Amino acid sequence: MTTVDLMDRRDHLLGAGAPIFYETPVNIVRGQGVWLYDDTGRRYLDMYNNVPCVGHCHPHVVEAMYSQSQTLNVHSRYLNEDVLDYAERLANLHADPLTSVVFTCTGTEANEVALAIARAVTGGHGFICSDAAYHGNSAEVSKFTRVSQQAEEEKASEIRAFPFPQGYRSLHDGVSDEELTELYLAEVERAIHGLRSDGIRLAGMLVCSIFANEGLPSIPREFMPRAAEIVRDAGGLVIADEVQAGFCRTGDWWGYETTGFVPDIVTMGKPMGNGMPVAGAAASSELVDEFRRKKRYFNTFAASPLQAAAGMAVIDVIEKEGLASTVDKTGIYLRGELRKLQVGCEPMADIRGHGLFIGMEWVQDRDSKRPDADGASAVVNRLREKGFLIGSAGPLGNILKIRPPLVFKQEHAELFLTAFEECIGQTHYA
Amino acid sequence: MTTVDLMDRRDHLLGAGAPIFYETPVNIVRGQGVWLYDDTGRRYLDMYNNVPCVGHCHPHVVEAMYSQSQTLNVHSRYLNEDVLDYAERLANLHADPLTSVVFTCTGTEANEVALAIARAVTGGHGFICSDAAYHGNSAEVSKFTRVSQQAEEEKASEIRAFPFPQGYRSLHDGVSDEELTELYLAEVERAIHGLRSDGIRLAGMLVCSIFANEGLPSIPREFMPRAAEIVRDAGGLVIADEVQAGFCRTGDWWGYETTGFVPDIVTMGKPMGNGMPVAGAAASSELVDEFRRKKRYFNTFAASPLQAAAGMAVIDVIEKEGLASTVDKTGIYLRGELRKLQVGCEPMADIRGHGLFIGMEWVQDRDSKRPDADGASAVVNRLREKGFLIGSAGPLGNILKIRPPLVFKQEHAELFLTAFEECIGQTHYA
Repeated sequence: MTTVDLMDRRDHLLGAGAPIFYETPVNIVRGQGVWLYDDTGRRYLDMYNNVPCVGHCHPHVVEAMYSQSQTLNVHSRYLNEDVLDYAERLANLHADPLTSVVFTCTGTEANEVALAIARAVTGGHGFICSDAAYHGNSAEVSKFTRVSQQAEEEKASEIRAFPFPQGYRSLHDGVSDEELTELYLAEVERAIHGLRSDGIRLAGMLVCSIFANEGLPSIPREFMPRAAEIVRDAGGLVIADEVQAGFCRTGDWWGYETTGFVPDIVTMGKPMGNGMPVAGAAASSELVDEFRRKKRYFNTFAASPLQAAAGMAVIDVIEKEGLASTVDKTGIYLRGELRKLQVGCEPMADIRGHGLFIGMEWVQDRDSKRPDADGASAVVNRLREKGFLIGSAGPLGNILKIRPPLVFKQEHAELFLTAFEECIGQTHYA
Repeated sequence: MTTVDLMDRRDHLLGAGAPIFYETPVNIVRGQGVWLYDDTGRRYLDMYNNVPCVGHCHPHVVEAMYSQSQTLNVHSRYLNEDVLDYAERLANLHADPLTSVVFTCTGTEANEVALAIARAVTGGHGFICSDAAYHGNSAEVSKFTRVSQQAEEEKASEIRAFPFPQGYRSLHDGVSDEELTELYLAEVERAIHGLRSDGIRLAGMLVCSIFANEGLPSIPREFMPRAAEIVRDAGGLVIADEVQAGFCRTGDWWGYETTGFVPDIVTMGKPMGNGMPVAGAAASSELVDEFRRKKRYFNTFAASPLQAAAGMAVIDVIEKEGLASTVDKTGIYLRGELRKLQVGCEPMADIRGHGLFIGMEWVQDRDSKRPDADGASAVVNRLREKGFLIGSAGPLGNILKIRPPLVFKQEHAELFLTAFEECIGQTHYA
């Protein structure tokens, strides 16, 4: 079937407008490690990744799931030790206070649980978030989506946004990191004050630990721990969305380690089961107990032995293959080499990120910093033609999002850099 | 580890109060077909089931998932034919207008999508539902949970409940089926009118096609098609929640066939992937297209090749093993035999249901029909001691819910009937 025929069929069966990547979509039939293969046998280097963090079809994860699905997969209202072992192992990877886990199937559901915990425990209903956030697709969680850009009537008065912290397009040019921290913290306080003056009690703050959808900005160093302090002083809980940031993508186990704070509640998802739907919220057992007392929460497919098997296998691989350190090393190499290419390429502006999660501003010129979303999109599509899959992100759509799996190595980075250099050597970007 | 130690560990890791079955919880370590096995090797006949509809660890489903997870499991923003084949196969099982599918991971998410479709298409925001409903655990969907029993301040003004239709504890005793239909339909109209008089435009009706959580009542025969008509005449869409009712549990493919109506939107979940998290909403392509135009909806783990493989394998098994007809036959046998036991057992009142989804009212005495939730709970716990797993349900907690997997056969029914007879032969029920 041709791509056009397949797209027609897809429009009919999944709805016209179901999200798809690239001007010419890729028909993927097979995956292995860092590679995806289309129906003609052509290979693509997966640098969008997102979910299968230890590589496509990793045999250890595949075999663990196979073995478990032959043995038992049942809901969590019977006792089962496997899921307890998995919860314990997850808790041991987290900062001290986070000892209990409420499992769900998706990151959206994990954020639903986190909001419910914060509301149940604080008695408040209001939240603050960043003004370019995305935390999921349910009615409640999607209220956090780019709050500042929503039509007035859709604005949820219980949710207030602050400008996300960033160094490149910052609130004020030419100030020190310390001064910038104060400026952004004042915005956090303003958002909390806005709730208070409307009589809405604060339940907490929900943010991605590394502001991934915001475009992986360079955050003033003291911002996150101080913002967390402000939220707690105002009676709220701090929720770190680790759905994209977690599981060593930044070279640390968790994004909150990278940006230097300890959350009250953490939500996890995407890479957690390498493609098996597993997600969850972790918190102290005091918080989770209080949530359980006040809310009856049950999730049919969650906390299952199959989730536990897939999740355990992912942790096994990250630990056994020492991926945290290779991610860190490969990320440093890749950012360094990309910076070398900036010399000959005006649109390549701020290159940033952590580990194997890299953001690059694409601009019309570096003096004006004028964002070039069309140019970024052209690069993404040109790379796809060359067999490299990356994405774009950020509120202005001009940030190249480079996020290969954790098993991506320097040899893969070299292939990418060659292709990228060819791309930017072409005269027209848009 | 003893049950007490395991429960302590569970309380700590998953939160004290995480839902669990039975006074003495069962530590399940293995499943095969209709059987679950505990850590001592003792077997239990799974008559709660709910999810693994073609039996625990069915080899065809296990192998299909294994083969797929070795080949590819990736998000849906690339083209992939497997998920289109699965969507087409599902659509072919549904009534004519339902030709498109929006995949999700859980029934809750499927209901989120259905509500969003109805709101996007009608422009309305109000819904009607039954007064003993449960449709999921998210903030939005849990607004439908037993609306009539919620505290006044929690009542969502956009959601209005009508008394669910039932023959046993009906609105009016001693009237004909036709008269009862009219009485219940008047309540549906009253709920719609309530929204209208508060200036809330109707988006639709969300109901389980067989009112499973309501206790599987006997529904006046013309109620469902006429209620659907009333909703459509008032400008709303009819959403059938098939999360429990679907996939041949009633002996028909869908609960809406059993209760005789055609919905505008159908939501599916639990049995869909035999334990793999797969769910979705089906509707006409016109409705889904309009939803896609108005809302950006993406679900990371959904519409994946692994979901498609598990889902396809479940349909294969149901078709190849001819389960629709054995479910119907075994259900008739089981209800018939249970009715014979009523003679010597006062608490066994109304026995009803469809296929292998049976509800039984447990009462203090049949004249007063006074519900006996404690007695029902005692029977459930006593059966667990004998190695048979059933549940209880209904707004009064007094309805025994008997729902074995579709592969449950007459030989299993006979084992259960013997045990059940022994249970009710014991003098004290509570």
